[in-house]
Amino acid sequence: MRAALVVTGTEVLEGRVRDENGAMVAASLAGAGVEVHRITVVGDGLDDIRQAVAAAVADGMDLVVTTGGLGPTHDDRTMEAVAMAAGVPLHLDEDALDMVRAAIATVPARASDEVRERGAQKQAMVPHGAVALPPPGTAPGAVLVTGTAVIVVLPGPPWECAASWHSASLVPEVAAILDSGAGGPVELRLANVVESEFMQAIDRADPEGQGLVVGVCARPGELEVTVRPQGPGADAFVAFLDGEFPGAIFSRDGATVEDVIAARLIALRQALATAESCTGGLIGARLTSRPGASAWYAGGVVSYADSVKEQALGVAPSMITQHGAVSAEVAEAMAAGVQQRLGCDWAIAVTGVAGPDGGTPTKPVGLVFVAIAGPGGIDVRELRLHGDRERIRMRAATIALHLLRVALNA
Amino acid sequence: MRAALVVTGTEVLEGRVRDENGAMVAASLAGAGVEVHRITVVGDGLDDIRQAVAAAVADGMDLVVTTGGLGPTHDDRTMEAVAMAAGVPLHLDEDALDMVRAAIATVPARASDEVRERGAQKQAMVPHGAVALPPPGTAPGAVLVTGTAVIVVLPGPPWECAASWHSASLVPEVAAILDSGAGGPVELRLANVVESEFMQAIDRADPEGQGLVVGVCARPGELEVTVRPQGPGADAFVAFLDGEFPGAIFSRDGATVEDVIAARLIALRQALATAESCTGGLIGARLTSRPGASAWYAGGVVSYADSVKEQALGVAPSMITQHGAVSAEVAEAMAAGVQQRLGCDWAIAVTGVAGPDGGTPTKPVGLVFVAIAGPGGIDVRELRLHGDRERIRMRAATIALHLLRVALNA
Repeated sequence: MRAALVVTGTEVLEGRVRDENGAMVAASLAGAGVEVHRITVVGDGLDDIRQAVAAAVADGMDLVVTTGGLGPTHDDRTMEAVAMAAGVPLHLDEDALDMVRAAIATVPARASDEVRERGAQKQAMVPHGAVALPPPGTAPGAVLVTGTAVIVVLPGPPWECAASWHSASLVPEVAAILDSGAGGPVELRLANVVESEFMQAIDRADPEGQGLVVGVCARPGELEVTVRPQGPGADAFVAFLDGEFPGAIFSRDGATVEDVIAARLIALRQALATAESCTGGLIGARLTSRPGASAWYAGGVVSYADSVKEQALGVAPSMITQHGAVSAEVAEAMAAGVQQRLGCDWAIAVTGVAGPDGGTPTKPVGLVFVAIAGPGGIDVRELRLHGDRERIRMRAATIALHLLRVALNA
Repeated sequence: MRAALVVTGTEVLEGRVRDENGAMVAASLAGAGVEVHRITVVGDGLDDIRQAVAAAVADGMDLVVTTGGLGPTHDDRTMEAVAMAAGVPLHLDEDALDMVRAAIATVPARASDEVRERGAQKQAMVPHGAVALPPPGTAPGAVLVTGTAVIVVLPGPPWECAASWHSASLVPEVAAILDSGAGGPVELRLANVVESEFMQAIDRADPEGQGLVVGVCARPGELEVTVRPQGPGADAFVAFLDGEFPGAIFSRDGATVEDVIAARLIALRQALATAESCTGGLIGARLTSRPGASAWYAGGVVSYADSVKEQALGVAPSMITQHGAVSAEVAEAMAAGVQQRLGCDWAIAVTGVAGPDGGTPTKPVGLVFVAIAGPGGIDVRELRLHGDRERIRMRAATIALHLLRVALNA
């Protein structure tokens, strides 16, 4: 089974917005083992959308998923484009109309009744023969089964798209495609392995010769590896990697480093605090992006200014004067300070020069100190990172999380 | 002039990684007024890449930009695919080889000399007639001018891609395409306007009838509007919007709310602190994503646990017991506490129920309190947000920043 995605939206095409929807649907399909052949991003124009959908159907795709362009106004034309590509007329779906009217009734009225009803009628137009999906917001999606392909039409706002995709996956024809998938790959995550080393190891193991498809994606501070198909061959290859890179594989089920830390801290009934300087809250934002973080994450201090390091974390002003705010000593004092003041078992502290300005010969851009405080003491590491400001911040955050993970034996 | 982008990478196609590169190049082209017609995401397969490039050339694109697939290993085949699509052979470029060898020499050797040299030779293969671009990492990009199109080949890691795109833009044939663009649109950002209201206003103004193309993109808490082409017609339309939505337009040059806040605080020589509960550091991370934040942002407290609200911010335990951690009273106390303890003129505090769990009938998921403390006192707002956890967190962060902006008269 093969799928193509058509992401609509001039704002994505012009780079003002990152595509979330195509990635969400693609990940869902890949997880079920359905091959995603292509993602095409087009603008809001009727003809561009129609062409992209028609090309996917002509290329023999079993599933075509569109996102976006289902709003109440005349420049939202995806339903029309899908109907044209499938060679069926648009028609007003009474079920859809009822669902849109009900959805609109729950949001505060900022437009006139007439405008709202006109929008509802527009949004209830679906291709003839399609099943309308319940709208998470006000726009119903749709599933249209043609002679050769199943076409799923989803709304554009990411949370609506995700909810609609869930509804679509319950429609029998879509469910059948998802169930027919070969199953997801073995998903590994490795820390502290560089891509070139990993590639050398792969060369030696020759997974291709054993019918395995290995995908490698380098993320800041991590390697993400997929191995297909699941089975004894994949298991043997994973065992080989485990031998080549002892301790590097920290996840075999898609769990992120945050997931691993969370599970370990919950099991230990211990709590974590953070003290962030150059990362400015990135670590806290990552830790709290999953529900239930309050069970193991107390919070922390964003100690961007030296005065905050002193007042909120108890770092001695003389230490900052003597060693500089970016130093092993200050990282250690930040970790100890937040651990003690927030009464936590564990603490992460990060201080560094993220650039592009502020570097000196002895403290260049990319110099970052990470301290991990735990029940057994404090460990400080010096990092020398490359790249631009965001890359340095992201890498520092990821490496800090891995240092904590290792300290936790997780 | 029309451009198409071909983003390569199975990790993007399978939704494990968000595309940064296509968006970056697309934004750059849109800013220059070059029309981006299509972005195609394909896997790492030679044939898929070749087909996507060939289709773009066949469709009459003036510029085709590929990203990714330039690594040292055999499964990085974009150069080969581009050469095939253009009908020219691959050849070893001596300049490129020198550049790759020099680049490799600066990174720590974790592979054997032989493996490194083999990788260097592979990465120095470019289509015959192409100009190799200096490698920001180890992979040189290339610019190939064919009879009908200019093809730009860029590496995949986002920071390398961005640096290579800058180099490519200086190549005369690419510079000529960028210079020929109609110029960017007028870019507006509006706060506190819902899309349906805005669409009603557009209906009344009929910009299409005046030859204007208006793009609207709803972001969490903001509307981003583009108007093309620049000129008196666009100016009149902007003036109309200004009349319809007094005070809503907070940016006319692409500046973000963080940019606007930063400029205002620098002008005032005042400083900001943050106290974040449900947003967990998102606001701090956003404020510090731009260089130079230390001039106006002191830092803050991520007070995820109640004990942190009490110890680090001085919120009275009795207040939490009486009103709950998610309450106007606690938001106000958090803002006052961080403002006073960090010695800042301004403070933002956020506390809320981000969900999906933790909601109650009186404190449902989506209930968020934002407090803004300033030299003149503290203002607290109650928000009722919809959507999933990330959406609620993002919206809360954006709305909080806008409340500060308004308080700053910026």
